[in-house]
Amino acid sequence: MVSDPGTERHTGRLEAFSDAVLAIAITLPVAELHAPQAAPGQVLGALLDMWRDYLAYALSFVVIGVYWATSHFSGKLLEKTDHYYNLINLAFLAAVAMVPLPTRLMVEHADDDQVTAATVYTGWLFLCSALWTLRWVYSIRAQLHDPRLTPAYHRMIARELRLMLLGHALSVALVLVDYRVGLALAALVTLRFALAPDEPEYKPGEAPATEIEEADERPR
Amino acid sequence: MVSDPGTERHTGRLEAFSDAVLAIAITLPVAELHAPQAAPGQVLGALLDMWRDYLAYALSFVVIGVYWATSHFSGKLLEKTDHYYNLINLAFLAAVAMVPLPTRLMVEHADDDQVTAATVYTGWLFLCSALWTLRWVYSIRAQLHDPRLTPAYHRMIARELRLMLLGHALSVALVLVDYRVGLALAALVTLRFALAPDEPEYKPGEAPATEIEEADERPR
Amino acid sequence: MVSDPGTERHTGRLEAFSDAVLAIAITLPVAELHAPQAAPGQVLGALLDMWRDYLAYALSFVVIGVYWATSHFSGKLLEKTDHYYNLINLAFLAAVAMVPLPTRLMVEHADDDQVTAATVYTGWLFLCSALWTLRWVYSIRAQLHDPRLTPAYHRMIARELRLMLLGHALSVALVLVDYRVGLALAALVTLRFALAPDEPEYKPGEAPATEIEEADERPR
Amino acid sequence: MVSDPGTERHTGRLEAFSDAVLAIAITLPVAELHAPQAAPGQVLGALLDMWRDYLAYALSFVVIGVYWATSHFSGKLLEKTDHYYNLINLAFLAAVAMVPLPTRLMVEHADDDQVTAATVYTGWLFLCSALWTLRWVYSIRAQLHDPRLTPAYHRMIARELRLMLLGHALSVALVLVDYRVGLALAALVTLRFALAPDEPEYKPGEAPATEIEEADERPR
Repeated sequence: MVSDPGTERHTGRLEAFSDAVLAIAITLPVAELHAPQAAPGQVLGALLDMWRDYLAYALSFVVIGVYWATSHFSGKLLEKTDHYYNLINLAFLAAVAMVPLPTRLMVEHADDDQVTAATVYTGWLFLCSALWTLRWVYSIRAQLHDPRLTPAYHRMIARELRLMLLGHALSVALVLVDYRVGLALAALVTLRFALAPDEPEYKPGEAPATEIEEADERPR
Repeated sequence: MVSDPGTERHTGRLEAFSDAVLAIAITLPVAELHAPQAAPGQVLGALLDMWRDYLAYALSFVVIGVYWATSHFSGKLLEKTDHYYNLINLAFLAAVAMVPLPTRLMVEHADDDQVTAATVYTGWLFLCSALWTLRWVYSIRAQLHDPRLTPAYHRMIARELRLMLLGHALSVALVLVDYRVGLALAALVTLRFALAPDEPEYKPGEAPATEIEEADERPR
Repeated sequence: MVSDPGTERHTGRLEAFSDAVLAIAITLPVAELHAPQAAPGQVLGALLDMWRDYLAYALSFVVIGVYWATSHFSGKLLEKTDHYYNLINLAFLAAVAMVPLPTRLMVEHADDDQVTAATVYTGWLFLCSALWTLRWVYSIRAQLHDPRLTPAYHRMIARELRLMLLGHALSVALVLVDYRVGLALAALVTLRFALAPDEPEYKPGEAPATEIEEADERPR
Repeated sequence: MVSDPGTERHTGRLEAFSDAVLAIAITLPVAELHAPQAAPGQVLGALLDMWRDYLAYALSFVVIGVYWATSHFSGKLLEKTDHYYNLINLAFLAAVAMVPLPTRLMVEHADDDQVTAATVYTGWLFLCSALWTLRWVYSIRAQLHDPRLTPAYHRMIARELRLMLLGHALSVALVLVDYRVGLALAALVTLRFALAPDEPEYKPGEAPATEIEEADERPR
């Protein structure tokens, strides 16, 4: 397997850069929203007519927000980063930063061409989750995680990621049968990660001194 | 109540992400401002005609800026974050990032449809303050604060937040009577938070060693 | 004078938020640049015709960039921030984030209405430098600086800021006489801050242990 | 040589600001992508017709992303920054933030005027790499690097940078002969930096205690 010794660093800069990209991706769709140029007395109606715009903003915010919250937790498990982890993370960010586009496509074609729009949308969510999983697989191979975590905990995360990937793949397939069922499954898989993740399991006698001690703060 | 042990982290990443979203939200409206395409000799007049654009930028900056300054202080009181606090914070950010839109709506309809525009505007400020309060209530329940603060200090913040919520709710109602009174109250409640917040009260013998010691730097 | 004890924090979050706003302000003008839609064989000409756009981008970048570099240094002298320092800093950021607008105005009216455009431009630079100076004056009063700096060093900075303010005020006045002279003076004053600032002077026996020790890392 | 003692700081703020600019530059092109306004049944075709837009986004992301990953590593070698390093870094950022523009130009003129577009594109990549090299040369002169690195390691980096510069210069020249060959060389030189950089070599007995110890964390 490819290896890049000597490129390891604390995760601070990786997290700051990733968060900046996610913050921009989550906030940029606001720039697409404009106050309606309605005549007096028709402002409220014009605002309500923009429901698709608001819905697209809200949906993008939920998906990117859940990814941020999940990566806030997964960052706790990570002790360090390296060059190839950075590259995989860039690919993941490139995909997530695009999420507002298929979201908009789906919202704008909610009345026509639903199957095409829903296929693109669920397919894009699948791509994001595949890159997320790839990043995790690499981090295990390159041993970037807190070494105090138990193998059993790693196996449990692996199971959850397989389930997530399978769920997103299935949602793409289901869209071709009934786009509503496919979208519902994609929403379910996304919202599952809004729930609090499983508590980390540490090897006996190696638990962090406090509940906020980061992996790179551990004594050694 | 819902609990998510094992997801706690220092507040650094939460603050960095929140600040990035607020920084983008506060700066993006500049992109809506364009140098006027006026004929020679009419540049000054064209600039002055854009007063609504400048006013909308300034108003958004004040509201989002006061939220930033207030969260800079409230971040001092926080020792750690967890998964659900992150989620509530995301909802708060989604609302604040939208502030430039109702602001623009109000400024553009200052001559007509003032009641609709002012209702949307004050209603949005109420929503932001409700999410802010919800975040605070959760942080108390999940005990995320600096444990050295006194219960009396927490009760005082609770009183202030109730007053703020009440003020914003009242401003929406007042708009329907006289939109100028409603807007004035909303401005008053917002500007109250521009004043320096009350000095934190620590339990006897537990005050921080220096005035800049963060909660997660305390000895334990 | 107004005081806000209990709101002091390390400068990390203040610097991160300010830098995010400056980074967005410095980068957003790129979004105004578009690849020309020229016919084959006319691409080069179309690109060269866009020189005003490039010039506006470059000028904004220089002014905001010099402010960033100067605040990188002035941040070294600062030990902590407080609520009112944060508010003054917000006003400063609001002004600097607008710099691309008067810059564009000046570049687009370089052939006509130069006096109006140059007055707005130099006036805006004066406003930015006035807010910068106000922030510094407040930081001295609220004793936010590294207490190891000598009074003589503070006096020297005060002299430089007075000179800068005077220079920017004079440049606005000179524009009304000859806009080229006024702009030249404004450029001179701005570029003076591109030069390395004066080395900090510490009280005898209190110099930092290393040249990169921050004020809040000093032993106490 | 120019010197600016007293302006040195940890690299944290420099890295945070640079990463914010790079994050914005890498994400802003998403705002240029819009969901197609196609009639029902023609959505898929309309999406595929936008391949140039997606290609421009992907290409910009790769170039800016590789620069980020490389600067993540080069930041590991840096112990501190100073005023002039900050200024050179600003010039580098100004150039990299513009990358989406020549990228778009090249993609849009892939069928016509290829030589002009490819000359501008490869020329811009050369400019970026020249500023990157200048920054590195300055950092050596001003001794900003981790002092534990061996002179041999510095010489090896110097050789690699000379090769990169030569490669980019050659790619501009080759475009005039055959634009495909020139672009291929530019791609090759860029992708070489996607490979993991060479492991740092430390002086005997001076290697960092852990593989993630930063230069400014070393005992002294």
